[in-house]
Amino acid sequence: MNAATSTAAVTTPEQLDEIAARAASATPVWAATLPTVRAAAMVAAADALMAARDELVAIAQVETGLTEARLTGEVGRTAVQLKLFAEVVVDGSYLDVRIDEADPAFVLGARPDLRRYRIPVGPVLNFAASNFPFAFSVAGGDTAAALAAGCPVIVKAHSGHPQLSSRTAQIVADALEGAGAPTGILQLISGQAEGVQMLKDERIAAGSFTGSIRAGRILADIAAGRPAPIPFYGELGSVNPVYVTQAALDENADVIAAGYLTSVSGSAGQLCTKPGFLFVPSGHTLAETLVSGASALGEHRLLNPGIAAGYVARRDAILATEGVEPVVAGSVRLDDDGNAWVTPTIVRVSTADLLAGRATLTDEAFGPLSVIVEYDDAAALAEISSELFDGNLTGTVHAGGGEDSAALRSIIDWIAQHAGRVLLGGWPTGVAVTPAQQHGGPWPATSNDSGTSVGSAAISRFLRPVAYQSVPQQLLPTPLRDDNPWNVPQQRNAAGSSQTWGSLNGGVR
Amino acid sequence: MNAATSTAAVTTPEQLDEIAARAASATPVWAATLPTVRAAAMVAAADALMAARDELVAIAQVETGLTEARLTGEVGRTAVQLKLFAEVVVDGSYLDVRIDEADPAFVLGARPDLRRYRIPVGPVLNFAASNFPFAFSVAGGDTAAALAAGCPVIVKAHSGHPQLSSRTAQIVADALEGAGAPTGILQLISGQAEGVQMLKDERIAAGSFTGSIRAGRILADIAAGRPAPIPFYGELGSVNPVYVTQAALDENADVIAAGYLTSVSGSAGQLCTKPGFLFVPSGHTLAETLVSGASALGEHRLLNPGIAAGYVARRDAILATEGVEPVVAGSVRLDDDGNAWVTPTIVRVSTADLLAGRATLTDEAFGPLSVIVEYDDAAALAEISSELFDGNLTGTVHAGGGEDSAALRSIIDWIAQHAGRVLLGGWPTGVAVTPAQQHGGPWPATSNDSGTSVGSAAISRFLRPVAYQSVPQQLLPTPLRDDNPWNVPQQRNAAGSSQTWGSLNGGVR
Repeated sequence: MNAATSTAAVTTPEQLDEIAARAASATPVWAATLPTVRAAAMVAAADALMAARDELVAIAQVETGLTEARLTGEVGRTAVQLKLFAEVVVDGSYLDVRIDEADPAFVLGARPDLRRYRIPVGPVLNFAASNFPFAFSVAGGDTAAALAAGCPVIVKAHSGHPQLSSRTAQIVADALEGAGAPTGILQLISGQAEGVQMLKDERIAAGSFTGSIRAGRILADIAAGRPAPIPFYGELGSVNPVYVTQAALDENADVIAAGYLTSVSGSAGQLCTKPGFLFVPSGHTLAETLVSGASALGEHRLLNPGIAAGYVARRDAILATEGVEPVVAGSVRLDDDGNAWVTPTIVRVSTADLLAGRATLTDEAFGPLSVIVEYDDAAALAEISSELFDGNLTGTVHAGGGEDSAALRSIIDWIAQHAGRVLLGGWPTGVAVTPAQQHGGPWPATSNDSGTSVGSAAISRFLRPVAYQSVPQQLLPTPLRDDNPWNVPQQRNAAGSSQTWGSLNGGVR
Repeated sequence: MNAATSTAAVTTPEQLDEIAARAASATPVWAATLPTVRAAAMVAAADALMAARDELVAIAQVETGLTEARLTGEVGRTAVQLKLFAEVVVDGSYLDVRIDEADPAFVLGARPDLRRYRIPVGPVLNFAASNFPFAFSVAGGDTAAALAAGCPVIVKAHSGHPQLSSRTAQIVADALEGAGAPTGILQLISGQAEGVQMLKDERIAAGSFTGSIRAGRILADIAAGRPAPIPFYGELGSVNPVYVTQAALDENADVIAAGYLTSVSGSAGQLCTKPGFLFVPSGHTLAETLVSGASALGEHRLLNPGIAAGYVARRDAILATEGVEPVVAGSVRLDDDGNAWVTPTIVRVSTADLLAGRATLTDEAFGPLSVIVEYDDAAALAEISSELFDGNLTGTVHAGGGEDSAALRSIIDWIAQHAGRVLLGGWPTGVAVTPAQQHGGPWPATSNDSGTSVGSAAISRFLRPVAYQSVPQQLLPTPLRDDNPWNVPQQRNAAGSSQTWGSLNGGVR
C-alpha cells in the first residue's frame, strides 16, 4: 500500500511530515532514473488510468456533476498527456544540453570546456483544480510535467472531488511504483490549511496551482515569502475576449453565434478559457440564433455549492449593472444540496456602459455567462481593451476571409501583448496538448507568465540549469558526455566560433 | 541629449515618471526592430564603449579603487558581451520558435495550426553592482541580455560609481539611439528609495539585481508583492566551496596553493565567485606557499567605505571564532575617507570547529578572506556541506589525474544539487560569457535559479511565450511565418507525428 490510499480525510501534521520526507527521499532516485524507465512508468500510469476509466468516471460524475461524455474524454486526454510527456523524456531536448568546447583562442581569453543541462528542482506541490477532475488534477498536466522533469509530486486534492482524487492517486501511484518509480513518487494530501503548511515545507521546491485569483495570490505570496522562496506557477483567472469584425459578421453571423454559444455553455462554462466577452459591431443580429440555440440546451449542474454561490452572485451583479440587457435570459435552480442547475445567460452592453460599469463587469464569471459588447469603432478596440482588461490566457479575433487592416492588426497585437494565446477564428476552449501550446499569460491569468501549464513546454517549470566546467568524461552526467548514449540533442559550440562575433562590425578581440 | 545625461543626482519623482513613460513608449518600437538593426545598435554601443575606454577607466579607478589592468579588461569583456548578445539576436534561436502543423488525425482530435515564440516582457529595471562597474553595471550583462530580448532598460546606478554610471549611460544610450534605437532605450536613475519606487511602477515588467542577500531579499519581496507581481532576478550571495582530494594534494599542492591565493586575492576578493572555503585533507602543507605568495602582494583598496566596514566586521568575527587560526594574517588599513586598504587573510579551522561555529563562519565575507577547512573523512564531505551551506553559484573539486571514487562522485553530486556550476580543477573566479555558462544557483545564490546572469542563456529571463492559433501567414509575426525571412531556427512538428506516442506501449488513440 502506498501513501496515496489513506488521504481522503484531512492530512495530519505527522502525515504531512512523512509525505514530505518520502518525496525528498524519492527525489535523487527518480532524478537518476533512466529516461526509458521514467517514460515506461508514465506510460504504465496512463494505461492504468485508462483501465480504470469506467470506475473513475462514475465517481467523478457524482462528485462534479460533469457529463459522462466529457469525463470519459478527459480521462483519455489525461492518459495521452502522460504519454506525451513520456515521449518528451525519451526525446531529451527538454534537457537543453549545451556544450562549449574548450577554446584557447576564445575572444576573451582561453575558455574552458563548459557543459550545461537542466536538472529536476525537487519535490513539486501541485494544487489540483475543481473543473478538470482528471486533466488538471491528481494525474493531470502539472503532475505529468513534473514527473517527466524528474520531480516527485505531492498533490493537494481539490475538496470538490475527494474520493476521485484518492482513488486516482492510488491507481497512478501503484502503476508508477510497479513500473520502477520510487516510493513517494506521487502522494496526496487533503485540507486547505494542510496545503499551505506543505507549501511552507523546506523540502518543497516548486508549486503549481489552477484556481481562483484570490486563492492563487495567497499561495503565490506564501511561496515568495518563504525563508528560501520557491517558484509558484498559478493559473488563475481569465475572461478571454473575442473580437468579431464587420466582415466576419457579414460572412458568418450564424456560425459565429452557434460557435460562441457552444464555447460558453460547454461544461457549463466552467473552463478557464471560456469566452467571457464577445465584441461585435452594433446592429448585429446574433440574438435570434443565440436564443434559439440556447432553448435546446438542458440544465447542467455546476461543480459544487461554492462555485454555485459564486456564480449566482456574479450573475446577479452583472444583470443589475446599468446598461446590461439580457439576450439569453438563462436560468439558475438551486437544489437542496446547495448545488446550482443552470442554463446559459448571455447579456449585451455597449462599450460605453461596459467602460462605466467595468468595476463590476470585467471580473471573471465562472460559469455559463458571457457578455456581448456592441461596438461602433473597430479602430478603438485595442485602446478600450487596455482600459478594461488585465492579462488573459487567450484573445480571439474573427475576421473575414483574407481581411487585413490597421484595426485588425492593432487588436491582434494588443492580444499578443496581453495574453498567452492569439486565435484567428475558432474558440479558445479546447486546448491542444502539443509542443507549441501556450497556456499562461500576464497577471492575473497566471502568477508567472514565463511558463505554460498545457503542452510539452510545461516541463521547463520544474527544471533548473547546471553547468559542468572541465569535468572529465567519466564523471559527467550522461546527457553531457561526448558519446551521448541516450542520444539527446546536444547544441555544440565549436572552438573558434567566437571569432565570428567580429563579423558584425569590426570587433573587440 | 538623452535622459541619461542628467542623473548623477538622486532622481526626482517627476523624472522617475518621465523615465518610466519613455521606457514604456520605447517598448513596442524596440520590440519591433529588425534583428539586424537591433544587433547593429548593440554593436555600436560596444564600439562606443571601447572608443571611450581610457576616459571611463580613469573615472572608474577613482571611484572603485580597482586596478587599471582589471578595469581595462572589464571594458573589453563588457563590449564583447554586447556583441555576443548581438549575435544571439541575429541567430534567433532564443525565440524558441515551435510550429505545430494542423493535424486532422491528431491523437486527441483535430489539432489547429499552432505557432509559439517568445516576446520581450517590456521595460526592465536593472540594479547595478558595485564590484563590476562595467560588466555588471550600466551596460553590463543584464542590460545586454534585456536589450537583446527587445526590452528597454532602466538602470538604477550603484552609489559606488555615480560619475562612471552617468558617463557610461550617456555614451551607450547615444550610441544605441544613434544606431536607430528609440529614445528611452537605456536610462539611468539614482537613489535607493528611487530604485524601490521604480520597482513598484506598473510599467516595469522585470527586475534584475547583483548585490547582497539583504538588499536582494528586500527587492525580491517588493517585486513579488506588487499588485501585479513581476519576476525578479537577483544574484545575491555565494561562498563557493572548493574541495581538494588527497590525490590532488599529493600531485599538485603548490599549484593548488598558488591558484587559491590568486583566486582569493584578485580584485581584492570582491567577486561573487571568490572561493570562500577550501576543504583540504588534514596534514596538508599549503601554509608555506600561501604565506610566501601573500608576502608578494601589495595592498588593494576595497570598493567603498560600506564594503570596507562590512569586511572589517566579518573578518573580526571570523578571527574571534573558537578554533579559527590565521594562516596568512593579512592586513586592513583604514584611510581618512573610510576606505580600507587590504591584503589577503586566510584562516584555517577543523570541520568540527566549523560546524560548531557555523552561525558566524559560513556567511559570505566579501573581500580577500577565505577559510581552509581541514578534514579527515572525504566520504563525509557531502553530508558536512549540507549542514554548512545553502545554495551557491559554484562548487569546485580538485581531484587527482584519473581519480574516481564514491566519495569523489558524492561531493560532485552534492555540488550539482546545491550550485549552478560544478568545476573539476581550476577556480570559480573568471566566468566565461558563453552559451553553456550558468551563473545562478539555489537560494540565496540567486532569487530565481531558473536563469543565469552570465552567458547567452541570460536572455531567457526577459522573454515570455505567446502562441498563435490558426493565424493566416500575412498576419503572423515574422519569425513564425513559413517563408521565415529572418532564417530563425523553427522546430516544426509535422502532422501525423502524434501517432508515434502509441509506440511506447500500446496507445491511447
